[in-house]
Amino acid sequence: MRYEDAGVSIARGDAAVGRLRRFVESTYTPHVVSRFGHFAGICRLPGAGPGAPVLVASIDGVGTKVLLARAAGAHALVAGDIVRHGANDCLVLGARPLFFLDYIAWGKLEEEAMQEVARGLAEACRAEGAALLGGETAEMPGLYREGDFDLAGCMIGYVQEERVVDGSQVRPGDLLVALPSAGLHTNGYSLARAVLLERGGLALGDPLPGTGVSVGEALLAPHRSYTAALLPLVEGGAVSGLAHVTGGGVPGNLVRVLPEGSRARIDRRSWQVPPVFRAIQERGGVPDEDMARAFNLGVGFVLCVRPDRAAGVMAELEQRGERPWILGDIAAGARGVEWAV
Amino acid sequence: MRYEDAGVSIARGDAAVGRLRRFVESTYTPHVVSRFGHFAGICRLPGAGPGAPVLVASIDGVGTKVLLARAAGAHALVAGDIVRHGANDCLVLGARPLFFLDYIAWGKLEEEAMQEVARGLAEACRAEGAALLGGETAEMPGLYREGDFDLAGCMIGYVQEERVVDGSQVRPGDLLVALPSAGLHTNGYSLARAVLLERGGLALGDPLPGTGVSVGEALLAPHRSYTAALLPLVEGGAVSGLAHVTGGGVPGNLVRVLPEGSRARIDRRSWQVPPVFRAIQERGGVPDEDMARAFNLGVGFVLCVRPDRAAGVMAELEQRGERPWILGDIAAGARGVEWAV
Repeated sequence: MRYEDAGVSIARGDAAVGRLRRFVESTYTPHVVSRFGHFAGICRLPGAGPGAPVLVASIDGVGTKVLLARAAGAHALVAGDIVRHGANDCLVLGARPLFFLDYIAWGKLEEEAMQEVARGLAEACRAEGAALLGGETAEMPGLYREGDFDLAGCMIGYVQEERVVDGSQVRPGDLLVALPSAGLHTNGYSLARAVLLERGGLALGDPLPGTGVSVGEALLAPHRSYTAALLPLVEGGAVSGLAHVTGGGVPGNLVRVLPEGSRARIDRRSWQVPPVFRAIQERGGVPDEDMARAFNLGVGFVLCVRPDRAAGVMAELEQRGERPWILGDIAAGARGVEWAV
Repeated sequence: MRYEDAGVSIARGDAAVGRLRRFVESTYTPHVVSRFGHFAGICRLPGAGPGAPVLVASIDGVGTKVLLARAAGAHALVAGDIVRHGANDCLVLGARPLFFLDYIAWGKLEEEAMQEVARGLAEACRAEGAALLGGETAEMPGLYREGDFDLAGCMIGYVQEERVVDGSQVRPGDLLVALPSAGLHTNGYSLARAVLLERGGLALGDPLPGTGVSVGEALLAPHRSYTAALLPLVEGGAVSGLAHVTGGGVPGNLVRVLPEGSRARIDRRSWQVPPVFRAIQERGGVPDEDMARAFNLGVGFVLCVRPDRAAGVMAELEQRGERPWILGDIAAGARGVEWAV
């Protein structure tokens, strides 16, 4: 089974987004610092003093993980996921979270579930140091089924402009340091649901072969936040580029921070793909290429680091309880990601 | 037919949002300036320097107007609506738009429709002076039907902190100046659809009795922007309070800017409710109270103005091609909105 068979086309999405570029860029004011297609946008605040930070902004959803959350009553978990996702996307540019806004649409507003969403949002916001500054709660019968809901959120962060990590400092010779994901995070759920539940006939309470946990537990692991582990390193200038592995997988996201003339080489033997991904691949007969584009495969975040700083970065991460590894390196060559076995 | 019969409960929504307050306020950092429940949140940018503006942030959807937009191919229109809605919500606090982020979720991404959404977003952003700084486009089969989509967006604006219009300056004796809406804007669509289409048996192409236009034309009028008309007045300090009439209607929104001891008195004879609302009420037998809570009834934006400035404000608005009227006034009394006939 391919990702497209589950109703999601990365190629269609990428192509559509590419065609939007002229529309988006037609709106850019002199305050915009970022370029199209990065993990988050960057904008100056007019009238802020010299040396003021710039604003970094990102908006995201949690995908069809909401359908599993609904079935399992894990509303607080996906609410936290969307906050952590946004914080990670700001972190990619070196930014610290400032505030968050949520959008929640229901077929029919359910009080208890809404309380759980709010609790999850608030707990994650407090952990990120982001104020939950606003939100919209909508009831939309006719678009959503009665118990269904969708969830999106916008994170605004800030960073000194000269400290923005945009990948332009990535150089051949840099090493790629990876941090593990905690599961699927918020990507690939349409494929996972199709393979395991719809076609695979498993229920959320069934054991997921090879994982030691149930399907529900495997699929409803939280989207990890990397801010606590990485912000000190990033603000200390230890990294040349960062990638948050979301839709598009390692290849689709790492390429976004590569300057022309830089090629990322991934050593596929440097880590073991976690059991949940292997179970999905085996049960669904999903081709390697689709696995690499739909899922993070255990790689949650990637740091580009000068080779002479890699040992120090690894040691600092380990001191914070992380389990980093060297995922590969940057070589000279045509811009792209080499996904070698 | 009541609003609840269409699947939307303002009371349920208000109560649920009220119960979220403790969660939301638990996240407030020292940078947050606003209070819970206003039209938009306000936050300082750390390190921005003395005299820097504060940030104003709002997130919204367009409600089930998306279902009509889909049926009529009016994707660009609702995309513009969400931008203008956000700009209006920032304007309520006196803020000028800075940047916008959109969230679009599809059952299955449709190229042409997506282009139209992008065109609508970009045109509206340019008109507002807001950069389209980021966005998320998601394909979510299983949550949305194949041709369905939902649309949300986050507007960030800025204003000098001492210029924030938060209603605290509203005083008994102030006059209420209203500006007309262009139709339903983005509220009350579940009720309008139920009354006219689902129960009423009308099609979008049918004439809407008493309006001279089709049902589709009547329901798919754009959500107006008030920034061009009002920003100069607001930045010039001419108003003491502002309300954007969205979900909850005139009473539900005007009350949000009233300080304790101030009562807004609406003169229901001061304007004619536009034909589209009368057609909905007659066809659906909708009680007055539900009409006032579900719809703007022709009142798009309300300004609170000192009595000695009202004539000047009206004249300035008329010079910009607006048709303002005196909607009522502020009296001393228990905080609330008096919806007198």
